[in-house]
Amino acid sequence: MTRIALKSSVLAHNDAIAGRLRARLHERGTVCLNIIGSPGSGKTTLLEAVLPQLAERFRCGVVEGDVATDNDMRRIVTLGIPAVQIETGGSCHLTAESVERALGDLSGGLDLLVIENVGNLICTVAYDLGEDDRIVVVSIAEGEDKPLKYPSAFVSANTVAVTKTDLEPYVDARVEIMVRNALSCNPGLRIFPLSAKTGEGLGAFVGYIAGKLTNR
Amino acid sequence: MTRIALKSSVLAHNDAIAGRLRARLHERGTVCLNIIGSPGSGKTTLLEAVLPQLAERFRCGVVEGDVATDNDMRRIVTLGIPAVQIETGGSCHLTAESVERALGDLSGGLDLLVIENVGNLICTVAYDLGEDDRIVVVSIAEGEDKPLKYPSAFVSANTVAVTKTDLEPYVDARVEIMVRNALSCNPGLRIFPLSAKTGEGLGAFVGYIAGKLTNR
Repeated sequence: MTRIALKSSVLAHNDAIAGRLRARLHERGTVCLNIIGSPGSGKTTLLEAVLPQLAERFRCGVVEGDVATDNDMRRIVTLGIPAVQIETGGSCHLTAESVERALGDLSGGLDLLVIENVGNLICTVAYDLGEDDRIVVVSIAEGEDKPLKYPSAFVSANTVAVTKTDLEPYVDARVEIMVRNALSCNPGLRIFPLSAKTGEGLGAFVGYIAGKLTNR
Repeated sequence: MTRIALKSSVLAHNDAIAGRLRARLHERGTVCLNIIGSPGSGKTTLLEAVLPQLAERFRCGVVEGDVATDNDMRRIVTLGIPAVQIETGGSCHLTAESVERALGDLSGGLDLLVIENVGNLICTVAYDLGEDDRIVVVSIAEGEDKPLKYPSAFVSANTVAVTKTDLEPYVDARVEIMVRNALSCNPGLRIFPLSAKTGEGLGAFVGYIAGKLTNR
């Protein structure tokens, strides 16, 4: 009981800060995406593929969450896109408080704020980060059954990117079945199968985000 | 402070049960492996590949941990190997208590008990399950940088299986660099690159486990 009560109060505290953060981002006209996925699902690689295209028209910024290293932040900064790192030092998810604090280091006036969460398909789900859109990134190499085995992430999200579709011929998993399994968790999902390597499907995903930015 | 104190007491409680469980397994001559890895790293597929070979000589049993579904348990039972499912209902790791309870449903007299943990490379690390050997499963498709980004799992383990090596030609990651990165976290690791699909490297991994069972 103590654990459950504490958990609720931690989440209520997070939700309050997330609400404040969302309101502030909306005031500034910033669209916020929270990217969730397993380690190695291709979150940073996807950002490397889409952000340069978006940055031609919009002011973009990234918050990178990792248990250790600032490697991902450096990959984004190399593209000329401002990014800050939250190194959680063991913690398995970002909190709205950690994002709010990190935002102080990003210059204001962003059109798009992308938060790349810690690689974790479970614990990240419970923490609202003030986002407008929650995007689950899942690679076809992880197997088509992942939505069924980790349903909360897919239920809580608006959007799914099925990454590494170029690997489909070499793995025992079909993109079509992955999509069907994700929709069985949440029929309202927008799903983008894509490959950052070949570029297949990237245009639709970029178009979707650009549409959100244009129609603010 | 409250959170940290609670966490310590939760872990101390877990460690006490894990110690009791380890002692009981040793009394019965059972070797216990705790398999940790990201969603889709290939944990169940690896077990499907190695357990039938081990089951020819040893009595094997499996505890399957999942957030949702008993799909993995059914995959093991299909092989004629006894398995029980712990469906955590949202929790991101197994505890020694949940394993101890589940063991009541597995017939005694096992030579080898394999615990397949929940797909999570972070939260599973802190929970001793009474194992003799902790094996991290990481696929080459996740990227060669994963040991650097999730070091605790590699520091806490004895053994690593680098899976899906058949995908190496199709991904921007090298097995050799993955091995080097894992050893930089923990120079004492035994590392087995392997492919459950082609069978490459499986013999060495099966031989390693068989050796542990023979030299009990």
